[in-house]
Amino acid sequence: MQQNLQETIALLGRTPATLDALLRDLPESWTFRNEGENTWNAFDIVGHLIHGERTDWMPRVKTILQVGESRAFEPFDRWGQERETKGKSLAELLDEFARVRSESLSELRGLNLRSEDLERRGRHPALGVVTLSQLLATWVAHDLTHLHQVSRVMAHQYREAVGPWSKYLGVMQCAGHSSAS
Amino acid sequence: MQQNLQETIALLGRTPATLDALLRDLPESWTFRNEGENTWNAFDIVGHLIHGERTDWMPRVKTILQVGESRAFEPFDRWGQERETKGKSLAELLDEFARVRSESLSELRGLNLRSEDLERRGRHPALGVVTLSQLLATWVAHDLTHLHQVSRVMAHQYREAVGPWSKYLGVMQCAGHSSAS
Repeated sequence: MQQNLQETIALLGRTPATLDALLRDLPESWTFRNEGENTWNAFDIVGHLIHGERTDWMPRVKTILQVGESRAFEPFDRWGQERETKGKSLAELLDEFARVRSESLSELRGLNLRSEDLERRGRHPALGVVTLSQLLATWVAHDLTHLHQVSRVMAHQYREAVGPWSKYLGVMQCAGHSSAS
Repeated sequence: MQQNLQETIALLGRTPATLDALLRDLPESWTFRNEGENTWNAFDIVGHLIHGERTDWMPRVKTILQVGESRAFEPFDRWGQERETKGKSLAELLDEFARVRSESLSELRGLNLRSEDLERRGRHPALGVVTLSQLLATWVAHDLTHLHQVSRVMAHQYREAVGPWSKYLGVMQCAGHSSAS
């Protein structure tokens, strides 16, 4: 399946409401527990998504359109969410993610990208040449990676509680292959 | 973390709205594509959750309370969703899942389970003796397994489209460890 701008936007637009439905007002035993040292809980994951919205996705789209391959993207700080989350509640983060995602998508729609624009090229600091279309597809897949991660992190909390069923539950076999961008 | 009835119900109650926010009215290119032969798409997964609601979770809770270990649970038909989904739209399945889940949770709350009830034992046809508490924890983890799966199945559709970013995206490394109960 090729990246398709309308299908990309359709999915990107649903992620904030999906996380909101899953996480808002859920007991903190679900949302503030992680998988162990140097891993993320649901709160951290929403903070990471906000941080990506501010520093990664639309900024990189604009870098491609403005300077092409001539300058590499700013590297993304995978722990940058600490600045986004300090002193905030999960409800505040969910509100903020919905707002910044909505702004990003307004900006993306406003670019009126044509299919030839999607083939424009940029330079990733580690991966080298990438296209705008690949960047947009990665934005979607990054959302899904973190929805996949948050499901796994919460299931992890009942790892012992499920007893012998553990071996039947796919999410319990998932080897923490988490995220990046 | 021990299984806790209030925390279990809090999460179980959110799954229908989470899937609704993610899937309703999404283009069918996301919801009707799977990961290859004998795998499920998002539509199949919602059908499977409905089938579990009718035949698996509360029926097994009641079996434990009524007959204990003396009779094994009915085996769960992992492909039973075909009967649930025939001729229906995804929107109809999402409505139906919300309704049957809500009925299950009303019934569960109505049992007024005490902590000593949670240690009552039943017999799984393959796993042997299990407790009511383990069954309830598994119900939650099963929801999360399928949220994890639906994220992976949709990300799979952009597997090629993300280009070189694929290796950074955890969900693309996930080895289809799916489901069961």
